[in-house]
Amino acid sequence: MLSYSRLLRSGRNFHTSIQSLQHSGSFVFPNKELTKTKFIFDKNTHTVEQITNNANSFENSNIVINGWLEKKPKKIGKNLIFATLRDTNGDTIQLVDSESLLKYRNVEDVVQIRGKLSAKRKAASSNGNVKEYEIKLSDINVLNSSNEKPAQLKDQKLSGIYPPEYRVLQLRLPSQQLLLKRKNEVSKLLRNLLDKENFVEIETPTLFKPTPEGAREFLVPTRSGKFYALTQSPQQYKQMLIAGGVTRYFQLARCFRDEDMRKDRQPEFTQLDLEMGFANGEDIMYLIQNLICETWSKFAPLSNKQLMTLNNSGKLKDVNSGSDIYRMTYKEAMTKYGIDKPDLRAPNLKIMSLREFNIHSYQNLDFPIFEVIIIRNAVKSKEDYNNHWARLLQKDDYSNRVPIGVPILSDADQTNWFNSFSEVATFENPILLNKSLRLQKGDVIFGSSRESDSSIFENPTPLGRLRQLILNTPKGQELFYETKNDVATWVVDFPLFSPVVSENKKMTNYPEYENKLCSTHHPFTMVKLDDYDNLREHPLQVRGQHYDFVMNGVELGGGSTRVHDPELQDFIFENILKISNAKELFGHLLEALAMGAPPHAGFAIGFERMCAMLFGRESIRDVLAFPKSVSGVDLVVKSPAFVEQDVLKPYNIQYIPSKKNSEAN
Amino acid sequence: MLSYSRLLRSGRNFHTSIQSLQHSGSFVFPNKELTKTKFIFDKNTHTVEQITNNANSFENSNIVINGWLEKKPKKIGKNLIFATLRDTNGDTIQLVDSESLLKYRNVEDVVQIRGKLSAKRKAASSNGNVKEYEIKLSDINVLNSSNEKPAQLKDQKLSGIYPPEYRVLQLRLPSQQLLLKRKNEVSKLLRNLLDKENFVEIETPTLFKPTPEGAREFLVPTRSGKFYALTQSPQQYKQMLIAGGVTRYFQLARCFRDEDMRKDRQPEFTQLDLEMGFANGEDIMYLIQNLICETWSKFAPLSNKQLMTLNNSGKLKDVNSGSDIYRMTYKEAMTKYGIDKPDLRAPNLKIMSLREFNIHSYQNLDFPIFEVIIIRNAVKSKEDYNNHWARLLQKDDYSNRVPIGVPILSDADQTNWFNSFSEVATFENPILLNKSLRLQKGDVIFGSSRESDSSIFENPTPLGRLRQLILNTPKGQELFYETKNDVATWVVDFPLFSPVVSENKKMTNYPEYENKLCSTHHPFTMVKLDDYDNLREHPLQVRGQHYDFVMNGVELGGGSTRVHDPELQDFIFENILKISNAKELFGHLLEALAMGAPPHAGFAIGFERMCAMLFGRESIRDVLAFPKSVSGVDLVVKSPAFVEQDVLKPYNIQYIPSKKNSEAN
Repeated sequence: MLSYSRLLRSGRNFHTSIQSLQHSGSFVFPNKELTKTKFIFDKNTHTVEQITNNANSFENSNIVINGWLEKKPKKIGKNLIFATLRDTNGDTIQLVDSESLLKYRNVEDVVQIRGKLSAKRKAASSNGNVKEYEIKLSDINVLNSSNEKPAQLKDQKLSGIYPPEYRVLQLRLPSQQLLLKRKNEVSKLLRNLLDKENFVEIETPTLFKPTPEGAREFLVPTRSGKFYALTQSPQQYKQMLIAGGVTRYFQLARCFRDEDMRKDRQPEFTQLDLEMGFANGEDIMYLIQNLICETWSKFAPLSNKQLMTLNNSGKLKDVNSGSDIYRMTYKEAMTKYGIDKPDLRAPNLKIMSLREFNIHSYQNLDFPIFEVIIIRNAVKSKEDYNNHWARLLQKDDYSNRVPIGVPILSDADQTNWFNSFSEVATFENPILLNKSLRLQKGDVIFGSSRESDSSIFENPTPLGRLRQLILNTPKGQELFYETKNDVATWVVDFPLFSPVVSENKKMTNYPEYENKLCSTHHPFTMVKLDDYDNLREHPLQVRGQHYDFVMNGVELGGGSTRVHDPELQDFIFENILKISNAKELFGHLLEALAMGAPPHAGFAIGFERMCAMLFGRESIRDVLAFPKSVSGVDLVVKSPAFVEQDVLKPYNIQYIPSKKNSEAN
Repeated sequence: MLSYSRLLRSGRNFHTSIQSLQHSGSFVFPNKELTKTKFIFDKNTHTVEQITNNANSFENSNIVINGWLEKKPKKIGKNLIFATLRDTNGDTIQLVDSESLLKYRNVEDVVQIRGKLSAKRKAASSNGNVKEYEIKLSDINVLNSSNEKPAQLKDQKLSGIYPPEYRVLQLRLPSQQLLLKRKNEVSKLLRNLLDKENFVEIETPTLFKPTPEGAREFLVPTRSGKFYALTQSPQQYKQMLIAGGVTRYFQLARCFRDEDMRKDRQPEFTQLDLEMGFANGEDIMYLIQNLICETWSKFAPLSNKQLMTLNNSGKLKDVNSGSDIYRMTYKEAMTKYGIDKPDLRAPNLKIMSLREFNIHSYQNLDFPIFEVIIIRNAVKSKEDYNNHWARLLQKDDYSNRVPIGVPILSDADQTNWFNSFSEVATFENPILLNKSLRLQKGDVIFGSSRESDSSIFENPTPLGRLRQLILNTPKGQELFYETKNDVATWVVDFPLFSPVVSENKKMTNYPEYENKLCSTHHPFTMVKLDDYDNLREHPLQVRGQHYDFVMNGVELGGGSTRVHDPELQDFIFENILKISNAKELFGHLLEALAMGAPPHAGFAIGFERMCAMLFGRESIRDVLAFPKSVSGVDLVVKSPAFVEQDVLKPYNIQYIPSKKNSEAN
């Protein structure tokens, strides 16, 4: 093997940098000896773990390790340089160089080092009686040197937070490597579990047909002048697979959505997608809760967590088997928690309707329920209230009306607090109410209105939204979280249909509904058989066989029993949803159902979202190798990008002409 | 459970059909009793395999089986109907109905049947002494009836070939289900093998940056007015993963190419994609040949095949371990077989250069080699020659010149055959040549020219193309195939660069090269160290560290040792390939390499192509659930499709106005 060290002692500077390449006029052909040595290296190498686990046998042996220089080598004395090597597993070991091999080396140079393992002198050891080791360097092969960027970003290495352009450097952090490896372990576990249940992994196309109604999708121009659309999910293909005789399908499917990327979303993401034939939602829920239970059982402890749920009394309990997982109805979720995906780590932060006190809201007769959240012993002063609670009542944080909040700070407040709600509701018997609520000084009461129990479509309700905001604050979490564990629940019995919310509202405080229905989840969801009779005349009253899996206030996944009856499916498309071009959009599905498709049901879980939650990470970006920014930009490769007009020509499209576009052409 | 049978006996016709839905004026709300029964069925069911394997214990027990009616039930007598049920595994069993339960049933109705298992009367059994079973039907639940399409397509069910629109019906064939299941088994095996070697499966983005140079890619408009492009492969992302500290990466990655879809291609397909850090091509080849060997070992016998290769003498031999697989140089492939992906099932159908006889081609001085293929004892008459061989010499089948063919039918032919080649080459000493070639009556000799051994860029050569065409005919296979097995080889030592072929040719018979180079495989491939010195002055003479895996004349996959030195990579981009906007296109990669990226190498295999070959299928369409047509159309869902102009507006694009487009808007 060529010795790099001799070249080094000649004092040449081998740092490469993009800037110098960019500024050099005529190219310097890369020094061939140097370049060639980068490609010649030993294959039989050791790792730090290997040698420290068997230190006795390795002591004083020749060691060869691949890795990076974790920090800039430090000159200790005239002929002594210390450095830290980080190997391919992320483990580090000290290098001791008395031959000036490291003289010109920099942080994040990638090297193959040779040396002898020796125990550190006891004084140098930081770990008391435990032996620590170092390697006395005898040779180094610089496989590639690094430019100065890692040196400039050394603070970022400590914090772990890098500018997005330097994702490649960030990926080298052992914590990042661990996330990628663990995500791989999760997918392995899921595949094994599904394989044991005889699920077959089948790929479905992502180049699909445009369906302009519904969530915004990405289009793909073709040279025929027509467009594909990127699938938002394999929904229709998987139903056709079942119609085609596949009994148990799954896929870790790439899905694409062109949505506004607020709230931790990516334009492309992976779903664990599955479907079963000759089955219904019960079979799916049974399978999914067991999958989640096993996955949490294996991985959550690594983040010091475990899976919990609610018992029938609404109290937290451990999940020991999938069947423990609570099934909350939509009605319970909306009336107690104000949202269809409640964060149950705070199971006692609940909303209370004042209907039993005969108190109603009169502001909008479609929203007759008046409800409150009471926070006990939460404020010391008006200032305290303003600092911690009033700021959760900003209009910008609410789609519709903002709840009214009343801190109870005086005796007068205790008796007359309800006057603050007089614009929203009438209070006939406040004395009885006060006896029941027993508000104390230091409490805060928030109130707002909502639709009646059996027709709650505004989701979240204002108090549900407030509850979300409360639990998003450190103080709210401190006051109300009863566990650091992950708390799961099913949410079932959703209304099958929802009224379409009007874009043009006269009153900005209340949603206004058009005389048009949309599917609460999607049009392929079956109605609950008990409600079937109402389907034709009272569609807003029927519940669907849909089930969402909610954890910590996040919808991890959802699914439903499907409508495998083509007549019923078409009735839903055309008569209830009034989709005029249903045959054009869904003809292939209706045809598949009409040729003897068996009953089927399915589910999809956001795979990254599940992994992020499992690993205790805030964002799905943390479990993606190359996440995009909140506006869909890949800051590493600089996509998306403009293309020349003539690149578009074969697709029969062109830019819409404007002043702005002239820079693109 | 509701009994469907009573409803049936009332004589109602439950066939559904899209046509009737389309023609019905006002909708009939689906009969609720009927509809509801479709959703109520038993979960504890049996399979045919289960009951026939344990027939003794099941005999005379109550059986419940889900499945489809394989054929239209047949009325045998006044109160006797026979039918065949096909269960979810594709196994069939006879149903005997003496209660008119099947009276209105049709082929491909999906049902849940109940009955008692009984042995067929010996006379009715077709299998001699082996007991056959049937089920005496006691009840049937019609989970979904089928329209008349399956009845209309009953011949197609026998042949297995359906119109593409009826892919869903075709998928129900046990043979199709088997292909999907086996493909799943292959992916399971590959994942297990790679997992054992510590490879981590990591997802990379498919929404990438447009790179107008290179193969045509699909663009994705965004609302910013910029475009993503769909990745053709994870190449650059995986190199950045290695730069980011991942040591062993793999992915079953979805790739997209907007190419002309001749020759069995799909706009989207899956690659088994992998990359190793601190490694080079040798490590990759070692891994891949073992993967292929194990995969073939497990699956090829199911199609009565096994894996073979060539030994060093060019003879077929069995592959017992990955290291057996032959390594053919590009030069050997081009000189002996005329193509860089030779079909070695015919190892003795070889091309012979006549250079040693001092015979040269003078037509084009850059193509000085004259070479021949001799087929022995192949024709009886001129008519025979015209029927079987002359038709392989059609201009349409060749990019450039067509070989000249001479059947040896007379004594004169035996002596003077070379005169037919006088326009291409001069024959100085035909007598010596004839002594050596010893052509006999009945032989055919084909001849053409090619570039000299060390600069063969025309690929395939004309004789290489002819050889391909010969082996595409039944007669050619009969004459030259020496095995029905799969024959694999590596092909290595490709030229790193190729001259760009001019689009405007003056002579249509020879390729013309521009004064511009392109990468033979891709620009990230490293030069062989032995040739490094020629890189600057004689780039066309350097060989690359690229390796293709070829089987049965198909390139299954390829890979290379990468250029991890950023200066060298940039030199290749800018100085050799003269890519002027290299920093814009590849800046992210150069930056990643410049921050201490280790040496790395990788590989990608066409996963569907590999499965198709493994299962003995002609086309990758056979191993895809929903393949597209040769022009990229999904005939099931009818994509791609036109979209309204206003759908395009948010993406800042519009159709190019023309008469044609008015129909789209």
